[in-house]
Formats: sequence, C-alpha cells, structure tokens
Amino acid sequence: MSASPPIRTRAGGRAARRAIRTAPDFDMLPGLTGTLPLCNVMDDGQIARIDAASMDILENVGVQFRDAIALEDWRRAGAKVEGEMVYLDRGLVRDLIRTIPSEFTYHARDPKKNLRLGGRHSVFVPMTGAPYLRDLDDVRRNPTLADLAMFHKLSHMLPALHSTAHHIVEPYDHPISQRHLRITYSSMKHSDKMFMGMTTSPKNAEDVMEMCAILFGADYMETHPVTTGNCNGNSPLVWDETMLGAMRAFCKRNQPVLCSPFVLGGANTPASVPASVAQLNAEALSALAYTQVIRRGAPAIYGHYLSTVSMRSGAPMAGTPEISLMNFMIGQMARHYGVPWRTSNTLGGAKTFDAQAGYESAATLSAVIHSGANYIWHSAGWNEAGMHCSTAKFIVDAEQCAMAYRMAEGPQWDDFDQALAAVCDIGPGGHYLGHPHTQENFQSAYFMPEMFDNNSIEQWMAEGAQEITARALTRARKLLKDYEEPKLDPGRNEALLAYIARREREIPAADELNQSY
Amino acid sequence: MSASPPIRTRAGGRAARRAIRTAPDFDMLPGLTGTLPLCNVMDDGQIARIDAASMDILENVGVQFRDAIALEDWRRAGAKVEGEMVYLDRGLVRDLIRTIPSEFTYHARDPKKNLRLGGRHSVFVPMTGAPYLRDLDDVRRNPTLADLAMFHKLSHMLPALHSTAHHIVEPYDHPISQRHLRITYSSMKHSDKMFMGMTTSPKNAEDVMEMCAILFGADYMETHPVTTGNCNGNSPLVWDETMLGAMRAFCKRNQPVLCSPFVLGGANTPASVPASVAQLNAEALSALAYTQVIRRGAPAIYGHYLSTVSMRSGAPMAGTPEISLMNFMIGQMARHYGVPWRTSNTLGGAKTFDAQAGYESAATLSAVIHSGANYIWHSAGWNEAGMHCSTAKFIVDAEQCAMAYRMAEGPQWDDFDQALAAVCDIGPGGHYLGHPHTQENFQSAYFMPEMFDNNSIEQWMAEGAQEITARALTRARKLLKDYEEPKLDPGRNEALLAYIARREREIPAADELNQSY
Repeated sequence: MSASPPIRTRAGGRAARRAIRTAPDFDMLPGLTGTLPLCNVMDDGQIARIDAASMDILENVGVQFRDAIALEDWRRAGAKVEGEMVYLDRGLVRDLIRTIPSEFTYHARDPKKNLRLGGRHSVFVPMTGAPYLRDLDDVRRNPTLADLAMFHKLSHMLPALHSTAHHIVEPYDHPISQRHLRITYSSMKHSDKMFMGMTTSPKNAEDVMEMCAILFGADYMETHPVTTGNCNGNSPLVWDETMLGAMRAFCKRNQPVLCSPFVLGGANTPASVPASVAQLNAEALSALAYTQVIRRGAPAIYGHYLSTVSMRSGAPMAGTPEISLMNFMIGQMARHYGVPWRTSNTLGGAKTFDAQAGYESAATLSAVIHSGANYIWHSAGWNEAGMHCSTAKFIVDAEQCAMAYRMAEGPQWDDFDQALAAVCDIGPGGHYLGHPHTQENFQSAYFMPEMFDNNSIEQWMAEGAQEITARALTRARKLLKDYEEPKLDPGRNEALLAYIARREREIPAADELNQSY
Repeated sequence: MSASPPIRTRAGGRAARRAIRTAPDFDMLPGLTGTLPLCNVMDDGQIARIDAASMDILENVGVQFRDAIALEDWRRAGAKVEGEMVYLDRGLVRDLIRTIPSEFTYHARDPKKNLRLGGRHSVFVPMTGAPYLRDLDDVRRNPTLADLAMFHKLSHMLPALHSTAHHIVEPYDHPISQRHLRITYSSMKHSDKMFMGMTTSPKNAEDVMEMCAILFGADYMETHPVTTGNCNGNSPLVWDETMLGAMRAFCKRNQPVLCSPFVLGGANTPASVPASVAQLNAEALSALAYTQVIRRGAPAIYGHYLSTVSMRSGAPMAGTPEISLMNFMIGQMARHYGVPWRTSNTLGGAKTFDAQAGYESAATLSAVIHSGANYIWHSAGWNEAGMHCSTAKFIVDAEQCAMAYRMAEGPQWDDFDQALAAVCDIGPGGHYLGHPHTQENFQSAYFMPEMFDNNSIEQWMAEGAQEITARALTRARKLLKDYEEPKLDPGRNEALLAYIARREREIPAADELNQSY
C-alpha cells in the first residue's frame, strides 16, 4: 500500500478535458453533447395523445395568421383559409415539418467556435431583451450601447456561453428605429462567437440579413446557418405580421428561426400542464410548418417561452415545478417530430440577486439539462421576470452553465482502474490529497466553482464578508480588464459601418429614445 | 366557442391534490411516491463494474472495524479477521444484505403520518447537527434548547417535511452528556411526525431506544420502525466503536440505521467519480452487511454524505456537478442491491442566505429527485457547510421540497380532456383566466410559491423591498404564532420526563456547556 500506480496518459476524453481546464479561463467550451438519460415523463401513448390533441386543434380550432402574405402562402400550400383563420390538416403539417433538418451546424466568425445543434447537441445563449440592467455597481438603470457592449464582451469571455445573442439589454441611448443596426454590429464586433439576429420588424430582419451577408457572404449563408431569429407567437394560437415577416426574411436566406409560442400557464393556456403542452405544440407546429412553406428544408427550431402565472397577481413565475414538467414534455414532443428545440434557462423573478434568484435559476437549469434542450436561451443574467439583466447574475449563471455542462457529460470512466489502484494504495484511514493520481486528476475530476465561497466563516470575514453579488461584480470587472477584441477583417468592418451609416440616413430616427418596442 | 364545458369531478388523484392545497397550510403532505423516470447514468455493465470493484475492495483491501464486539461478530459470521481488519467475501456480503427489507413503513405518533420508505417512496427530513443557527433576526449565534424547540415546531408545521429529525441545532445551554435526552424529548413532544434517534454514543442510543419504548411500547418497536439512527463511516474504509455500538442498539430493537460513508471527494476518496462511488459502495455494503450480522432482517438504509473538496482550501463544496453524478450512481447501486437509500438535500456552503445558497440548494435538490433517493435528509436549513442552520433558509427549503414533490409526481392527466375543451372554448387570441376550468383547477394545476416574490418592482418596493430572507423570517414568526402542540398522552409524557430525570441524575453533567461533540 505504498507504491504509486503507474500514471497512464491517454489521448482520449480526459486529456482533452484537462486541456480545457488548464487553458485560459475564457476559452469557449465546445458545444455540449449530453450523455445523461433524459427525463421522459410521457410514455408513447401520452406522446400520441398530445400529438393527436394538437392536430385536432390545428384542424378544428385553427390558428390565426394576422398577415396577408402568410394567408396567401397557406392558401397556395393547400390549407383551408377563412379570413385570418388557417385550418391545417395533420397530413399537410406532417408533410411540411419532415423537411426541417433534425441537426445542423452553426458557423461562427471563428470556425473553431462552430456549433452543432440538434439531437444531443446543445448550446448556451445569454438572455436578451432587458429594458433595465443592474450594472457593475448593482445599480438598476436603463442600459446604453456601452452596457450592451459590456455584455457582449462578457459573453465572449465566459467559457460556457456559446453566443453573444443580440440585444442582451436595450440600448436606450440610440433611436429605437435604428437600434437593430448597432445591436447587430456590437454582437459581431465584440466576439467571434455566433450571435442572434433581431426580428423586431421584417425590415429590421432584412437589415440583419444584409449585415450577415457582408460578414459571411450571401452565398455562404445559403448553405451555412450563421445566426438565429426568434419569432414569438401570441398564445393562444395567433401569429402576427411582424413576426411572420421577420420569419420570412430569415427563412429565405436559409437562416434558422425559433418558432416560440409564449406560454403564461393559466392565463393564455389552460390550467393543465398536458393541455398547455398540447396547445403550445399546436402553435409551434403551425409556425414550423410555415417555415417550410417559405422555404423547403430551411432550418427551424421548435421554440417556446414558458412560465406559469401567479393567480394572486397575474405575474409570471419562474422555477416552478410545472415549468420543469412542461420542459420535459416539450423535449419529448420535439424529439418525436425530429426537430431541434429551444428553451429558456436560469430565469428569475426576483428583484435582486438574492436566494430567490438562485433557487429559480438552478431549478430551471436543471430541468433544461434533464429535458435535453438544444438551443438553451436566456442562459445568463435574467432576473425580475426579464425586466433587468443583472451583471452579477450574468457571471454566476454562466458558471452554473459550465457546471451543468460538466454534469450533462456524465461520469468519466477512462481512469477508473488507475483511481481504483489509488484505493488499494491508500487503504483504510488514509487520505488521498498527496497521491499522484489525485494530484494529476483533481482539476478535471471535480469542478471548483469560482463564484461559490467555500471558505470558513473566519476566512470569509477576513476577506471582507462579501456575498456572491459582490464577488461576481469583482469578477466581471476583472474579465473586462482582460478583454481582448477578436480580430475582424478591416474590409468587412468598413463595409458593415458603411451599411449602418447608409441605413441610419435612410431610417428616420424615432423621437423617443427611452421607449422600448 | 362560448359554451363552458361540463366540469367533471373525480374521486381520483386530482381531487385529493386539491384537498391538499385547500387544507390548512401546515397539514403534512403524504409520503412522496415519485413517478419521474430516474436519471440512470450507468448501464448494466457499469453497475457491474462498480459492484465488482467494491467487492474486490472488500475482499482484498478490507475494512477496518475499530470495535472489539464487531470484530468478534464478524469472526463468528465467517469473515476473515486480522487485527482490526475485516476481509469480506462477496458471497458473504451478498448473503447478508439480501435480508434487508427493500421497503418498510415508518410509524409516527399520529398514524396518519406513517410513511412508506424504499422503492419509489421517499421522505423529506430536515437538517441536523448545526453548532450555530441564524435566528429569527438572522443573527448567527450558538443555539439553545428553545431554538431547537423552534425548529421542531417549524418542522411540525411545514407540509413537505416528514420528520422533526433530532438535533437540528445543538442546544448549547444543556450539558453535552445529557443533551440527547432533551433533544429526543423535544422531537417527540413538539410534533407527532416521525423523528430521528441520536447515535452520539452506544449508551445515548440505548437511552433513545428506551424513550421510544416508553412512547410506542417495546413490543411494538419489534415490528414497527419508529425512528432512524445514523452511523457515519470514517472514509476511507473505517467504522469506529461509537458508531458501531450505536448501530447495535438500533438494530437489536429492529429500528432502521443509515449506514453513511462520509465522502469528501478528492480528500478521502480518489479524484474520480466512479472510483469514489466504488469505494463508498464498499463502505456502505460493509456496514449494511454488519446490520444483518447484528439482527437478520433488521431494516437498514444505504447511506452516505457527499461533498467534493476544494483543492484551493480543502473545504467541502456543495452543489457541484460531481455530487449530482454520484447521487445518480449511488441510487442505481442501492436499487441494484434492493436496499432503500439516503442522501443529503439542499446543502449550502454560503455564509449567508444569498444567491449562492439558492443555487447550491436547488442544484442538490434536483439531483436528489432525479436520482430517486428515499430518505432525503438535510432537507431544510443547511448552510455554511452545516455550520449553521438558517431559520430563513429552513422555511424556503421546505417550500422548495414541496415544489420538487409536485414535480416528482409528474404531470396530471386526469382532466386533460376538460382542459382541451377549454382550448376550443377560448380559441385564438383569447384568455383563460375567467374560464370555469381555470377557476376550478388553477390551485392544483400550478404551484404558487409563497416565498418567491413575483410582483412588479413597483409593488415590491411599495411593500418594503424585502429580499427573500426577510420574507421567510416573517413567515417563520407567523408559523410559530399559529403553532399548536399536538396532544401527547399524559401518562407517556410523565414516564418520559421521569426517565429523563433519572438519567440526568445518573449521567454526570460535563462541565463544558459550549463544546459540541
């Protein structure tokens, strides 16, 4: 029980993992490929019940498309159209959605940051859309373009975030009608990770597509997904002109769209988890099918936003058990149809970054992982039901995603025999800290969260008795100090700036800077 | 789309659930019977590898039993014993553990609060052993018997807690050598839920058994589990005299014991998740087998305490991905052997009830549910790595357990058709809040956490801008005001007090009040 075991080294997963851990902290983790068995709460019969209920809704209740072009498209595609109501036969729906790719690869500015999506492949994308932020001093205020740039820089540096998204916060210091240009440029410039494309109007979406064409080439986009647009539904069972027009802009360029019914369980869906899923599923299917009417084979993602509603206040809630159950069920439905799917992560309804925010976020993150979601949006910063993006929470959420990533990879077996040899070496009553296997492997064996303080209370007090908010803000300042802007081809940069300048001349600046759309 | 659907009522699960929700807030939830598919991260081959590795350890490395009686017991049972080392043949281990009941029922003072354990049946038990508390003013200080009584009262009133446990906090105002008597009496008196039995020494354990015999009858205990003792191992691979003696006291009375290796991953186990599980499994099996040497057929629970160690400070960490993975794996091993198993829940390493505590606790709770743990200990209050029990966190954790309970029950399908009828009624663009199905079902359909604030920031500020800690402490005060002590048979109460008085005369009071054991 004294001789050290030979230290084997392998070219396999463990060595790669160790490399990840010893590389600079801000190297992006590869796209997640999950191995955990998924939490499939429905049997085949229950999946069939949801499917049948959704198809009944599509055929008999119908979906409202408040958009003349979409109605004409549907008519040509063979659907029954009455006024704005579209009734979709299940045969037509099934025929349309079968051409949605079950997997595809996102192409980033840095090809090393390309990402597979669909099947067991998942990506973490930060939150978007906050009209307020809690800043580096934890002060709640309206954001600016500089604040947005800050979040894009942090997204670039935090390893588990795979995207800079788009308007993480709303830049209030720039005219509303022109914001999408500056937001898109900020995403593109501050990181070489993938990013999202604004869908605030069909014309804005066209601008985003033009800017992507400048960055990647229009032909390249025909065969390479480079961004993602989100199209929210108006549940129950309505899609509007803004979203459908934006959807067309993306689909025509072969760029993926999220088809996202917006569930406030109990308010715009029934007071029943399975029935809410059936309604949501009908809504998602109707939009997914429409993407294929626009362009056969275009990538599309089964989306949704999920919350349940407090019957005391009507407010959306986060981290509730029914949101978890709906995630599990929606995952099963998306896999049933063979379509990649999106969910929302680490949502908080708390007004500050207190324990409520922690519970809510971790409960959601867990459900997201166990449901096998692919496009894991709102993965950092979301608090106050999306009203603010918290800088502190942004940092902590991103580390939580890295921890969930580790969990989702499952146990590592490749050094099992070596580690067992250590048990023989140490024997009863010993300790492992000095053993060569421990010294060689502890970094990859056990995740050490930097944002969690595990010191004694005496040590913690000696270090200033900082709660996690303060520690995370210190970390954010440090990251921003270390930030290095990734190179952007000067010609493309100039072309982007020229495009923005031209469009800002063409688009009238709205008067009201301080109004969010 | 206007007629309301007929409202069906059923005697089944949903009606029962509604009854639970509309009953007074402090009625105990029935024992949890989970329905979610479990997160089985190992295939049969991997389970076999862990089993084989553990059996190799038991046969070749051996386990140290630092206790003369246990060594003699093992010798008689046919094990190879050399000094304090016991080498257990896998045939002997398998033969011994096969008589451990895979399920049994705990009997509480109030028979309505009896609880099934094992298989898919689980119970939530609050934390124990804290040398400090954060009190009703969130002040960190040493606890008293009055503080312990407060936690027993809260445990009695919080619906998801199935037990009052024992020394939730250490009562520093009573001599160490006599504490177990007052602790046990406090558990018994302040609630008619089940409780835990102190195992701080063999004699203390005998006292607990005597007190249980007074409360339930010695003969009754022969066939009815009424309490639980915990026996911690000294990992790696050591069991000591104190724990083994206490184990014998419980097993001889046919009362269940938790056989709990104490894992600090990387310090007293290898730097490998599967190898740590293999060592822990060997340790647990050795103790489980010994319970059957003591008394064939005695109930016993596969236990463990799990943390991973920070290689920066040596401190135990909570909420890490490897703890989740170990929970998943240990659940599979316990089910493989057909033995109920225990885990630890809602652990926090944070010094205050901040977001760190929330993330850590929710991440652990999620893993506990997805791993299918049966005896879910430390389910409320644990923070600062167990150094303090937080009154605020106690309240919130208990509600989180109620939420996890709801999730673990899975989706409710019994009113699916009615709820779908509501989708037809409402149609595109409507809302459900006024629909009869919603009004009838929202309480049971969607959990509304009382400790989460989901109001607007304006409303929240108008109500005093309270973070969750303050709200939870207000809730604790309200519960304590509403507390009603359950009736205890006066004769048994007197007999218990007489027993305590006699034993306190017999046991010398240690001088040092302020030393924990």
